[in-house]
Amino acid sequence: MLIVMSRQATSSEVRAVADHVNQSGLRAEVSVGAERTVIGVVGSSAGIRSDAFAQLPGVREVVPISKPFKLASREFKPCSSVVDVAGVAVGGDQVVLMAGPCSVESEQMLMRTASFVASRGARVLRGGAFKPRTSPYSFQGLGEVGLRLLAAAREETGLRVVSEVVTPSQIDLVARYVDMLQVGTRNMQNYALLQEVGRSGRPVLLKRGMSSTVEEWLLAAEYILSQGNRNVVLCERGIRTFETATRFTLDLNCVPLVRELSHLPVVVDPSQGTGHRDLVRPMSLAAVAAGAHGLLVEVHPCPSEALSDGAQSLDFDQFERLTGDLDRVLGSRSPAPEREVLSAW
Amino acid sequence: MLIVMSRQATSSEVRAVADHVNQSGLRAEVSVGAERTVIGVVGSSAGIRSDAFAQLPGVREVVPISKPFKLASREFKPCSSVVDVAGVAVGGDQVVLMAGPCSVESEQMLMRTASFVASRGARVLRGGAFKPRTSPYSFQGLGEVGLRLLAAAREETGLRVVSEVVTPSQIDLVARYVDMLQVGTRNMQNYALLQEVGRSGRPVLLKRGMSSTVEEWLLAAEYILSQGNRNVVLCERGIRTFETATRFTLDLNCVPLVRELSHLPVVVDPSQGTGHRDLVRPMSLAAVAAGAHGLLVEVHPCPSEALSDGAQSLDFDQFERLTGDLDRVLGSRSPAPEREVLSAW
Amino acid sequence: MLIVMSRQATSSEVRAVADHVNQSGLRAEVSVGAERTVIGVVGSSAGIRSDAFAQLPGVREVVPISKPFKLASREFKPCSSVVDVAGVAVGGDQVVLMAGPCSVESEQMLMRTASFVASRGARVLRGGAFKPRTSPYSFQGLGEVGLRLLAAAREETGLRVVSEVVTPSQIDLVARYVDMLQVGTRNMQNYALLQEVGRSGRPVLLKRGMSSTVEEWLLAAEYILSQGNRNVVLCERGIRTFETATRFTLDLNCVPLVRELSHLPVVVDPSQGTGHRDLVRPMSLAAVAAGAHGLLVEVHPCPSEALSDGAQSLDFDQFERLTGDLDRVLGSRSPAPEREVLSAW
Amino acid sequence: MLIVMSRQATSSEVRAVADHVNQSGLRAEVSVGAERTVIGVVGSSAGIRSDAFAQLPGVREVVPISKPFKLASREFKPCSSVVDVAGVAVGGDQVVLMAGPCSVESEQMLMRTASFVASRGARVLRGGAFKPRTSPYSFQGLGEVGLRLLAAAREETGLRVVSEVVTPSQIDLVARYVDMLQVGTRNMQNYALLQEVGRSGRPVLLKRGMSSTVEEWLLAAEYILSQGNRNVVLCERGIRTFETATRFTLDLNCVPLVRELSHLPVVVDPSQGTGHRDLVRPMSLAAVAAGAHGLLVEVHPCPSEALSDGAQSLDFDQFERLTGDLDRVLGSRSPAPEREVLSAW
Repeated sequence: MLIVMSRQATSSEVRAVADHVNQSGLRAEVSVGAERTVIGVVGSSAGIRSDAFAQLPGVREVVPISKPFKLASREFKPCSSVVDVAGVAVGGDQVVLMAGPCSVESEQMLMRTASFVASRGARVLRGGAFKPRTSPYSFQGLGEVGLRLLAAAREETGLRVVSEVVTPSQIDLVARYVDMLQVGTRNMQNYALLQEVGRSGRPVLLKRGMSSTVEEWLLAAEYILSQGNRNVVLCERGIRTFETATRFTLDLNCVPLVRELSHLPVVVDPSQGTGHRDLVRPMSLAAVAAGAHGLLVEVHPCPSEALSDGAQSLDFDQFERLTGDLDRVLGSRSPAPEREVLSAW
Repeated sequence: MLIVMSRQATSSEVRAVADHVNQSGLRAEVSVGAERTVIGVVGSSAGIRSDAFAQLPGVREVVPISKPFKLASREFKPCSSVVDVAGVAVGGDQVVLMAGPCSVESEQMLMRTASFVASRGARVLRGGAFKPRTSPYSFQGLGEVGLRLLAAAREETGLRVVSEVVTPSQIDLVARYVDMLQVGTRNMQNYALLQEVGRSGRPVLLKRGMSSTVEEWLLAAEYILSQGNRNVVLCERGIRTFETATRFTLDLNCVPLVRELSHLPVVVDPSQGTGHRDLVRPMSLAAVAAGAHGLLVEVHPCPSEALSDGAQSLDFDQFERLTGDLDRVLGSRSPAPEREVLSAW
Repeated sequence: MLIVMSRQATSSEVRAVADHVNQSGLRAEVSVGAERTVIGVVGSSAGIRSDAFAQLPGVREVVPISKPFKLASREFKPCSSVVDVAGVAVGGDQVVLMAGPCSVESEQMLMRTASFVASRGARVLRGGAFKPRTSPYSFQGLGEVGLRLLAAAREETGLRVVSEVVTPSQIDLVARYVDMLQVGTRNMQNYALLQEVGRSGRPVLLKRGMSSTVEEWLLAAEYILSQGNRNVVLCERGIRTFETATRFTLDLNCVPLVRELSHLPVVVDPSQGTGHRDLVRPMSLAAVAAGAHGLLVEVHPCPSEALSDGAQSLDFDQFERLTGDLDRVLGSRSPAPEREVLSAW
Repeated sequence: MLIVMSRQATSSEVRAVADHVNQSGLRAEVSVGAERTVIGVVGSSAGIRSDAFAQLPGVREVVPISKPFKLASREFKPCSSVVDVAGVAVGGDQVVLMAGPCSVESEQMLMRTASFVASRGARVLRGGAFKPRTSPYSFQGLGEVGLRLLAAAREETGLRVVSEVVTPSQIDLVARYVDMLQVGTRNMQNYALLQEVGRSGRPVLLKRGMSSTVEEWLLAAEYILSQGNRNVVLCERGIRTFETATRFTLDLNCVPLVRELSHLPVVVDPSQGTGHRDLVRPMSLAAVAAGAHGLLVEVHPCPSEALSDGAQSLDFDQFERLTGDLDRVLGSRSPAPEREVLSAW
């Protein structure tokens, strides 16, 4: 339910309505717009009659939200959100390139990779320190040592850093070193983790569960948003289907769909979403053509020696070719050389 | 199995090897290249020893083909095929736009649509006369009356025409009126139909089965190719997954994958592949960015009144916006105003 | 739409209502029950007002059918259908065992298999003469030679025979030799074929498409039923999912579901549905426990030498063990030694 | 890798081999059998040459394990495991019935349900106190209050209790009240949680991820087993497919498959796996016919008023009918009235 205030509503009227909502066992989320203020009513509103609020002073109308996700919906917030990752805007006019190795393996490989991707226009460094692996016997990441290396690479290159958290008790530790917390595909419905990253206030990169519908994904975002953390970036990374020729099926349909349903930015991971190095470049171009606000790409100095996901990592030459092609496709849409988001859709 | 002839091989040596193959219960498909001639050995080669051919005069080497599809593979034919649809090249340098209504409904709506899409750069008119519908009680198409209208629209506009065949006994009839035969998603494994369209020699638009793997799709193409018909264009149209927010999941991963595995052209149907009018434009741009050689788009003068698939049909304004955006994205890659295929991948 | 006649309605009143329906561009299917007569109205009834019929003499009420399938629904025919396959009742009190090789390969193997399965209680012999194979280079069946062998096996053993038709032009030929026509999973949406087997009047075994929903499957049955052929037996044979450890995922949920939605009998093919010989026996028992009216099982004298589907065929010892276990499980439900359908659900 | 000791090996030889393994950076899991002792080598054995151990005194042979899961495989432990849940054996000769409400809602409804299911032969009470819900606004369970009610119901009825844990920090709390910890489908790849329930030593009911392959499921079990906790019971609960007529597709193929690949017991949840009350009884019978060691069934005194999953909960009459049918089907296999596992497969 949304309570739309009239233009003339005073701030004390807004406050009174919000108090009334909170006293009804629900929670008010006040969104102050240029034209008017809207109050989102969060919580199970089953049994709450909308006219309980419609008669309060300053209220223009009470609008039901038709989607199960509320704070994530465009109905709640019609204009697109821009998430600030330590000064890098995700969801704005520029396509943001996030690149780096699947796992942090050593200082040298991380530094070489970070310097290279920064020199080719990446703004965010990705790299796993805690890796959720299907087998307990696979490499599980360097842990805090890996986080320290990521922080050092940030110092060196100016890149912002995103890295995965896999359990609530790690969040404080990881947040000490990185700018953005990643929730991985296997944890998209780990609601305890979602609530904790919500409470942390940090920007969150929320990967789509490999078998989650778009609605479930937006409800996972809602878990974070409903803790008061508005800094959520969605990331499509491929879904599980019957097709075995690719590791996953990258669902680009979801990019324009999510942009229609939600105000949150959406980026695409073509490395996970294809599983094949050769498909990363064309699918990166396809993703930005579909309207993605950014890309998350695995890059490794020597993919054949990678401890994880080597088959889908680009080497430096391939990454350079990708960025050149992106510049050509995106550059054409604006006189400036920036990689502008194809934001019309 | 491929028999690669030496550069110096004479045509009588080539003929002798082909005869030898044919006498072994297999079939020779001779492919004369600029540099050398290659003979594809078609049929079940289980039990055939490659050295049966390796010693023949003029043979340079005998190469096993590792894929279950032979004639469709890039191993058999390394350079990309261009299919000639009555003078329109599919698979060449230009992105070919195929557009029109889901079903032919009346003369007036067809003529209006054909004229409009032709004026905006479409080269091929699509329209169903025989419609395979899930319910026996749904509109099944106008049949031969619809074919006549399509032929009249071709006369009027110069567009080529593609229309679906659903059973072998219809092929002669449909081929009398149209330039290209479409095999629909529900018939992709209707092998009797595939063999007959193969024998017809006509260009074939082979839609991917909604739950077919890429390998099964290329094997369906192989059924057509193995009848001696080389004019096959593949069409991705969405696969069935758990996601219900879109009608199907458009699998663009398959575009660069098919271009790697096969020499056949591949086009994309974003109307079927999304089921939502709003997603057709961004996914069209994504398809060409992924490397598609063409698009198959449903257009209707008044989608809300369409007898089939109205929800996913563009109206004229939306189609115009799509072609404008395509020009901008594709135009940037060449000085000429043509819509050039992003063919590097 | 169903027109329920009053108990006192005369046969001329029934005829008059049926005529009225037929003159409205629809078709009347009259079902004479013990208590009263019901007239199914077949065709697209969009735009037909139910009160057009409600006022006719003898009409008790007009009931809309809520499902897209009409003749296949339990609303149309509340009591379960029994299909007569040349004297063998499918859908009645007995679980019907259909067994035999995937393909007819030779006279000797077919006769041995037929004699053996008949001696262990099978009532119907299965065996493919026309095989729809994914690759054009795989064994495609013996054709008419295979049909003759099946007919000879019927003479010898008294088994009824079911075999697949893959294209409309084959139906006459196949129907000359066999008792029941099978429509395979790849042709479940080959509507031209469905209509022709409908017109043939022969009992039809309609396999579920490997990626068809239950609703689409019942609509495929509706294509056959709407041609006036009521002898349709449904066959679940596994659906395509992400799981790769088995060839398909046998969807036994559909057995009680179909029995709730439809009056048609449903049998299960655990050979196709698992792809592993070791799983055939437990899944056969599970199928009858779920309420299946019969089983379709692949049996081969020497599975390791089979020309198709050897991995999922039982040898004679395994088939004997299966029938013994079925007797134990099913025997417990009735004093008689018959394999009675667990028909309560 | 498995190190098989000779029959004559002394316990000090066994200890010496285990020490050698542990000093190599791996971990030895000693399994003392009736005939001989086997040492499982746990950890990434890439780069470890098997002859490093083959020459040690008392070693008969070193056997590679071909599956990615080691401790969960039948190669490691050929005889089936029986898990002791506070005196109730899961995986032994008896089919164990676990029943109760989806969520604990109140003392009265829990006590009534517990008493009823106990009176009809259930051995374990299920009930959620911490509920992972797709929407943050849905009922999330009573938390510790719910756990206390479960413990009280155990006192009253003698039933054992299983309840879900959703995050590592809850494990101590939940373990204080219940006999068996459940890991839900959404957390099957929450590896931090798996490791913690592993360390707890408590019996664990591990639900299959709704889009997990059997191999991934057994690897999730491996995470628990590799912490030294051998008390894992697997639970199939339906997988996500394209079919929408049922909530999930219950994959009974996995029951005999898992029994072939692994020594762990496997139970089935037909409530989650179908989503329809009417399908629970037939699919329960199918599950035990396929070889399941137990059933997990949702029961509610008044399903239409349930706070979660009412559509799939049985009422008391329906549960009674289910247990009666189970007795008839299972009773037939043994003279005694027990519900014996159909353990031959």
